[in-house]
Amino acid sequence: MGKLLIVGTVAFDAIETPFGKTDKILGGAATFIGLAASQFDVKSAIVSIVGDDFPQEYIDLLKNKNIDTSSLEVVKGGKTFYWKGKYHNDLNSRDTLVTELNTLADFKPVVPNDFKDADVVMLGNLHPSVQMSVIEQMAKRPKLVVLDTMNFWMDNTLEELMKVIKHTDVITINDEEARQLTNEYSLVKAAEKIQEMGPRYVVIKKGEHGALLFNEDNVFFAPALPLEEVFDPTGAGDTFAGGFSGFLAATDNTSFNNLKSAVIHGSNLASFCVERFGTERMQSLGKDEVNSRLHQFKALTQFDIELQ
Amino acid sequence: MGKLLIVGTVAFDAIETPFGKTDKILGGAATFIGLAASQFDVKSAIVSIVGDDFPQEYIDLLKNKNIDTSSLEVVKGGKTFYWKGKYHNDLNSRDTLVTELNTLADFKPVVPNDFKDADVVMLGNLHPSVQMSVIEQMAKRPKLVVLDTMNFWMDNTLEELMKVIKHTDVITINDEEARQLTNEYSLVKAAEKIQEMGPRYVVIKKGEHGALLFNEDNVFFAPALPLEEVFDPTGAGDTFAGGFSGFLAATDNTSFNNLKSAVIHGSNLASFCVERFGTERMQSLGKDEVNSRLHQFKALTQFDIELQ
Repeated sequence: MGKLLIVGTVAFDAIETPFGKTDKILGGAATFIGLAASQFDVKSAIVSIVGDDFPQEYIDLLKNKNIDTSSLEVVKGGKTFYWKGKYHNDLNSRDTLVTELNTLADFKPVVPNDFKDADVVMLGNLHPSVQMSVIEQMAKRPKLVVLDTMNFWMDNTLEELMKVIKHTDVITINDEEARQLTNEYSLVKAAEKIQEMGPRYVVIKKGEHGALLFNEDNVFFAPALPLEEVFDPTGAGDTFAGGFSGFLAATDNTSFNNLKSAVIHGSNLASFCVERFGTERMQSLGKDEVNSRLHQFKALTQFDIELQ
Repeated sequence: MGKLLIVGTVAFDAIETPFGKTDKILGGAATFIGLAASQFDVKSAIVSIVGDDFPQEYIDLLKNKNIDTSSLEVVKGGKTFYWKGKYHNDLNSRDTLVTELNTLADFKPVVPNDFKDADVVMLGNLHPSVQMSVIEQMAKRPKLVVLDTMNFWMDNTLEELMKVIKHTDVITINDEEARQLTNEYSLVKAAEKIQEMGPRYVVIKKGEHGALLFNEDNVFFAPALPLEEVFDPTGAGDTFAGGFSGFLAATDNTSFNNLKSAVIHGSNLASFCVERFGTERMQSLGKDEVNSRLHQFKALTQFDIELQ
């Protein structure tokens, strides 16, 4: 059983989509990553911060998924990071209505001793200096450091971001962000340039259009499962990252072939996440459903053409 | 060797992309379809119309690909259909600068006797009444009628279009057009509705994001090959349709599995088309290059996950 260290936000989200709206519910990158990774045989811990307004039941929910929450700092008198957003009708774009950093503003992650030798470190979207401090606390080089980030850090903290990227094995990034980071429109060229920045694996997420995995001259593509209805895209990228890094921690194999499988597992889990608000679908997701949908993924993509 | 009947425009195109521009060059849906289909072991004919300004060398080029051009009507004193367009920087959208229908305005297709028993009829994008008149001229029901169309006909001749769709086995349509035709945003729901209109197979083309094939409860997805550079998207959809219908005419098998292969062959050929202006790349495309890229397609999409 591999060890997976997860760093990222644990948060309140309030979400509005064309199909409905929520009050403050459980959210945050580390939350989605942890729930997805719990589908695999891993020992995982979340390093994050919340205020004492954060309900114990949410912490228990994570604990019940065998996620170590001893390094989820609860700040007395503090308030939990809060994000409120509204999706447009096509669900491909959204407006952020509220961002309250609260306790997250002073987050100094402390890696628990038991996870300083983690096999896989999954750095959820956060300030790159915070991400870097986690890498620096590791007792030995992890087999894989996986980095998720976004355009906000490219706009505001590019220098710090480039430093983290340099120490990363796998970066997950969306198509527009890959273009912004490299000034290349072609994703093939963008992936080449990003590999020169440090990561030997580049995952470019294209939302409903799937995800590409690049490594040297190899490319692999996983589509998103075509769904009757996408209900709420919140957390889909983090769920992908959680499935991806959880599978890799569980299998202890960093070959291109195994990363391909990780991309499929990540895409598969993300297809569930979007079916309900927030973490709802992921909280009760069973092995049978997951396996059944992997069969759908196989049917969706595998073909027989005799090649000479 | 199956028979493939191709109906569509044979035209002059003038193209401007961020990478350069052309004067009037060889274009038209039937041209791209015919060139792509010529990669397979088929007996094909193009039914179309041009003016006597159309160079004999273009006709010879088609003949040299073993395409029967005896029903390519050359109108004395007439001018050939002409389209001029300019692509935006991302190549995903374009402005039409000139459309001169010329001889196409009075096109009355006449199916040659020798092709009234064609196995596959490929109806390239044209006025739906013209497409319908081709179906009506067939001596027997073809094994497959494949229809390509576009939003223009949905806007202007919806009733005629619905009549052709009803007599179609496979429709190829892009994602926005599928949504327009059905008022469904979800492509899964859109494909269901289109199947109720007639076609038992629905191919939804998503350009650089690949293509989906739907049949009852089955879905198959083929990505577009990630390319370093897309030079000119003109004709990519027609090349897809030509590869798709050419392969099906050559193999005489209308199972879902064989249509999956047809989608891969169509996507594979389209990936070449966009590498040069107009038909340039397709004119000299060799079997070895095509096979080599099929290997890339396989590497891009095939994975091994043990499923329970």
